[in-house]
Amino acid sequence: MKLSLSAVAGIPMVQPGDDLVELMGDAIIQQGDQLRDDDVLVIAQKIISKAENRYVDLADVEPSDEAIQLALEVDKDPRHVQVILSESNEVVRKRLGVLIVEHKLGFVHANAGVDQSNIEHDEQHQMVLLLPVDPDLSARRIRAGIKQKYGVTVAVIINDSLGRAWRNGSLGLAIGVAGFTALEDYIGGLDLFGRELVVTQVGAADELSAGASLVMGQTDEKTPVVLVRGYRPAEPEEEQLRGVKPLLRDKLADLFR
Amino acid sequence: MKLSLSAVAGIPMVQPGDDLVELMGDAIIQQGDQLRDDDVLVIAQKIISKAENRYVDLADVEPSDEAIQLALEVDKDPRHVQVILSESNEVVRKRLGVLIVEHKLGFVHANAGVDQSNIEHDEQHQMVLLLPVDPDLSARRIRAGIKQKYGVTVAVIINDSLGRAWRNGSLGLAIGVAGFTALEDYIGGLDLFGRELVVTQVGAADELSAGASLVMGQTDEKTPVVLVRGYRPAEPEEEQLRGVKPLLRDKLADLFR
Repeated sequence: MKLSLSAVAGIPMVQPGDDLVELMGDAIIQQGDQLRDDDVLVIAQKIISKAENRYVDLADVEPSDEAIQLALEVDKDPRHVQVILSESNEVVRKRLGVLIVEHKLGFVHANAGVDQSNIEHDEQHQMVLLLPVDPDLSARRIRAGIKQKYGVTVAVIINDSLGRAWRNGSLGLAIGVAGFTALEDYIGGLDLFGRELVVTQVGAADELSAGASLVMGQTDEKTPVVLVRGYRPAEPEEEQLRGVKPLLRDKLADLFR
Repeated sequence: MKLSLSAVAGIPMVQPGDDLVELMGDAIIQQGDQLRDDDVLVIAQKIISKAENRYVDLADVEPSDEAIQLALEVDKDPRHVQVILSESNEVVRKRLGVLIVEHKLGFVHANAGVDQSNIEHDEQHQMVLLLPVDPDLSARRIRAGIKQKYGVTVAVIINDSLGRAWRNGSLGLAIGVAGFTALEDYIGGLDLFGRELVVTQVGAADELSAGASLVMGQTDEKTPVVLVRGYRPAEPEEEQLRGVKPLLRDKLADLFR
């Protein structure tokens, strides 16, 4: 098996309302290539959120008493904290400078993924950028749009940089998935000696997202899309195995919340 | 930037004492290729441990009272639990069927990485396989061996499947690193709009390990090595930034222990 992970160059700064299918498809054609069946597109959350106009102007945010109190505790802008709380189910951990929450979408995520970097600012407006409303839906739409426009069946993974327990450094993990089995399940599989495998589930979409994240780099928004070839992505047959949800551990089953 | 991640086929079942440098180099030559400067070899922990003869026969293990008690709690073989405890600094979480520890090497790892799958067994002997004694050293030795035998400077990452908080499915993460900056640090870097970046550290060795893990697959020991091209690995100049340690969060700084 050989995978290639190629940065898609030449995608312009994304604006609200932009058609990402066209931007990505054109950029790939400009590279002298074209999308093919079984390609996997790993797309940075930030450009999805920008295209979907998920900006919030902090000047428009009125922080609640809870947000003001919490902002004092963690030393953040109370309006930023208000936006984070509005996006979250609950606070998981807090500490000076750190606010880790369960996002309404189920992700355990610092600052609910609300982002201030690589976003336009001026004196009057301090914009932050939320996660897409429904990243799985965003991924499905892009997948369907590519099918319609280019006639090929690809998989789409939307990734974001997430921190983690126990280890330093973020990883680019999946927050939206279409046409790809996010959690590979080896239950019932046998090892080379016919013994049942102990490790039974692999976070396949996260593994690919992480590798693609390395290609995207960190500071350069010019490569927010990575084209992966050599993988044979498959949409799970069962509805409940589709999308990113199989990767999210239920809180009650989680020993670290 | 374009990365290629190729499974190295044709590596035989590894036996204690095997020379992995030769096995890997020969397999790559058999593929009609050869190692080059700046290649990154991602190698599954299991073949390192096998080559280093890190087997323990459970028949030789005398469980302590603590191990017997803990084995009852989590429903595991007391001798297996004894091996896990001997490899660990402390138990981080326990539950029926689950034993998560801090390995002596600093990894938070289910069962201290002590593995029973893909290992030879018979009636009299139940072998388990420990992590390498010092995976960074194992990686450095392989890197030096490749330099000596083939005259090229490569990076080496040893990976293992680790579970995680909050998400289902293991990821192939780095447990030993040589010639590669495991933790990329963007502190002081600026984003596209000249603002200081909020996300400052990326677990680069883990991101690459994870992508390579997808190529290795899970059940097939025939591809325990992945050759990565297109990355420009760099050994950090400062001694304390080398190896896997920069990826390991100090317990006192960890909100999830």
